Amino acid sequence: MIAESVQNPYLKELDVDYLHHLGLNNTMPLKGMFGDVRYVCMSGSADRVKNFAEQLVKEFGFELPFGGLQPIGTKERYSLYKVGPILIVSHGIGAPSASLPLNEITKLLEHAKCPYYEYIRIGTSGSLGVEPGTVVVTSEAVNGELKAEDERTIFGEKVKRPTQINRALTERIFAARGDIVTVMGKTMSCDGFYEEQGRLDGALKPLYTSEEAMAFLHKAYEAGVRNIEMEALQIAAFCLAAGIPAAVICTVIVNRFNGDQITSTPEELKKFSGNAERIVMNYLNKDIEEKGVSINYKPYLTVDELPEDEQELVRSAREAMETMAQSKHYRFVVGAAVQAETGEIYVGANGERSNGDGICAERIALAKLEGDKKKFKKIVTIGKPAGIESSIPTAPCGRCRQALRDFAKPGEEHRFIMVSSTGNVLVKNDIEELLPISFGDTNLEE
Amino acid sequence: MIAESVQNPYLKELDVDYLHHLGLNNTMPLKGMFGDVRYVCMSGSADRVKNFAEQLVKEFGFELPFGGLQPIGTKERYSLYKVGPILIVSHGIGAPSASLPLNEITKLLEHAKCPYYEYIRIGTSGSLGVEPGTVVVTSEAVNGELKAEDERTIFGEKVKRPTQINRALTERIFAARGDIVTVMGKTMSCDGFYEEQGRLDGALKPLYTSEEAMAFLHKAYEAGVRNIEMEALQIAAFCLAAGIPAAVICTVIVNRFNGDQITSTPEELKKFSGNAERIVMNYLNKDIEEKGVSINYKPYLTVDELPEDEQELVRSAREAMETMAQSKHYRFVVGAAVQAETGEIYVGANGERSNGDGICAERIALAKLEGDKKKFKKIVTIGKPAGIESSIPTAPCGRCRQALRDFAKPGEEHRFIMVSSTGNVLVKNDIEELLPISFGDTNLEE
Repeated sequence: MIAESVQNPYLKELDVDYLHHLGLNNTMPLKGMFGDVRYVCMSGSADRVKNFAEQLVKEFGFELPFGGLQPIGTKERYSLYKVGPILIVSHGIGAPSASLPLNEITKLLEHAKCPYYEYIRIGTSGSLGVEPGTVVVTSEAVNGELKAEDERTIFGEKVKRPTQINRALTERIFAARGDIVTVMGKTMSCDGFYEEQGRLDGALKPLYTSEEAMAFLHKAYEAGVRNIEMEALQIAAFCLAAGIPAAVICTVIVNRFNGDQITSTPEELKKFSGNAERIVMNYLNKDIEEKGVSINYKPYLTVDELPEDEQELVRSAREAMETMAQSKHYRFVVGAAVQAETGEIYVGANGERSNGDGICAERIALAKLEGDKKKFKKIVTIGKPAGIESSIPTAPCGRCRQALRDFAKPGEEHRFIMVSSTGNVLVKNDIEELLPISFGDTNLEE
Repeated sequence: MIAESVQNPYLKELDVDYLHHLGLNNTMPLKGMFGDVRYVCMSGSADRVKNFAEQLVKEFGFELPFGGLQPIGTKERYSLYKVGPILIVSHGIGAPSASLPLNEITKLLEHAKCPYYEYIRIGTSGSLGVEPGTVVVTSEAVNGELKAEDERTIFGEKVKRPTQINRALTERIFAARGDIVTVMGKTMSCDGFYEEQGRLDGALKPLYTSEEAMAFLHKAYEAGVRNIEMEALQIAAFCLAAGIPAAVICTVIVNRFNGDQITSTPEELKKFSGNAERIVMNYLNKDIEEKGVSINYKPYLTVDELPEDEQELVRSAREAMETMAQSKHYRFVVGAAVQAETGEIYVGANGERSNGDGICAERIALAKLEGDKKKFKKIVTIGKPAGIESSIPTAPCGRCRQALRDFAKPGEEHRFIMVSSTGNVLVKNDIEELLPISFGDTNLEE
């Protein structure tokens, strides 16, 4: 919770607070969705935060939901995930890019009335004198002039804000390093990757010689700088102003004393970058245990969260599964219910033939719809091994997806609702998400 | 081509120049791949550049390749597309983020020995006094102090670079506005979205009152500023330094004289944002025609670009299609060739049964592989309407994808090679890309 003295009184005057870049707003039930958040982990790219979020799910002993984790809100600019008390969000590259999620996530957590939360940036960086694969935990965030202050232009005025990394949080993270080689040191944040970091390999002729570049890097080293990246300063300045504890931890991918270019292979980079994540997971595990933080993790949407017409469709599909499905040998029962645009419901259940052949629930329901000359709107598939329950939503097989593609063209908005017998739900809206680059009319009509 | 006086001599000393954030390097045949580039269009998000690239394909009268445009290089941080002489690349949010592709795309085009190219940023922005949907073409890029200079810290020193928007290019773009409401004016670039742009709705208590904020916006308006965004300054400073013509064109999504929040619906935003794109397409059409720029557009990889073993696999599949396929009524012939891990090739062709049933080429080839107890490595599918040629690669149907999933698990690296009878190729490496969230073992083993 940000200190009352820095809370923004103008937010109370807004009818609705649109968190534009997250695709969320405070008319949504944010307290229910985010009220238990206690940690915010940030990294640059969408891929990296997705990987980390999925690692966390496994780390806490949960199963990854079928189909992987789904981002929350719009993912056009930033990607947001939630795993129990941990929010994971991408911040893009550079301070201005990072300032948007810092503002919007903070507003989100204030709207959600979170009593305490902290920000941890997990990044990659160049280093001064430490080898690739080593982890640097930031003791202080400094700018390109080696000062612990962030300068921004606000209203034609240059405003300087001091930066502060939270010492207690940082030490707890450092203590969780295990056997990963880790150093603590200052982090220099620059507003660019090439000339701003003293690299010689930008597009433009450098404003300095290689000797001058090396001399500057050594000067920074002597001032205690151990790594160089692009966001720590912004995070440390924003969080100090807001009264939120902040820490930064980066894996080194190039030692700048040995060169400018990142020559590590993608495999090496992947291995390296996992080091910082591993330490943060150690810290989270320990902190969650010591502080008795509860992990409320719900991998799926559940049937009761669907709109009423879809709950009815699920009931119809379930009834079909329970009363009509027949799977003597294969032992997997499926029910399907198709909703027509005009509201009619058509059901089907799988049936096995004694020659080892069989027909799926979905294609039976579709055949009924087709016979009635109705237009396809939504479909529910529900299934489970015969005789036992399953928590994994049942997805249509490839053959049924091909059939569905005749009723739902790529780009059209439909609802493909996959349900487990225990009521877990996974929804896709476009046949393209179930059968990409599909064989169909396009191929036939030459 | 950047002016010789600012070309970076250090690049010649590098063994390899890794364009790290693009996933490209100069050991690749960059001249062949990018030598004809003449225009570079940049926008913030990956989605936006993909949409624009696909619009360009249609605008120039080409068919979109089956499966849509594929990005070039790594797409983890930035997305890159090429349509004839036009490169389209995302730059993320903010000046530091934009400086990376500016450097790396410029190096790329220098390696590719492009004799002339220009940068056009297509964005969205808040405006001063012009209504949402209006387009602002930038006459001058100014910073938060209303000066046409970009300041960055390099080596502990603040370095100021003047900015310049290319006047001739800008006027040609403005002249292409058609009936879209367009104004020309100064663009103010800020290093943030909230307080840096005088918004009152950030997370922190603003450093100013609403009256002061409005007074500053009016002061900027009187100085000629018509819109506010986050990247124009960086582009105008970099391009002036490099001697590359630059222009910036943005659609307005909020008039800041009426409020801070972006309350437009996603549909409105989508409609608005197309306006700037439309004008740039008008300009490109005209410029390409007037200057006689040739548009070499190749929607697909072709068979001769595949490794030799895959070319052989294509020959086997084609022979199967030509000699074995039978499709009397349906009139679509398909051949498939599966390569085992140990190198053996198994072929199949589709066959139609007189009861309207049939079997696909792929499942015949897979059955042969299975009978031989070999492990699956690669598959080629080739097909066309009987009696005529087709330029669209043939993708396996959903039923065959389901069968393939028993031979290729999600996450494993394989090659699914889809080929047209004319030799166009589309390749996917993971069954997940053909059959996402697939029904399979996961569902059965509860």
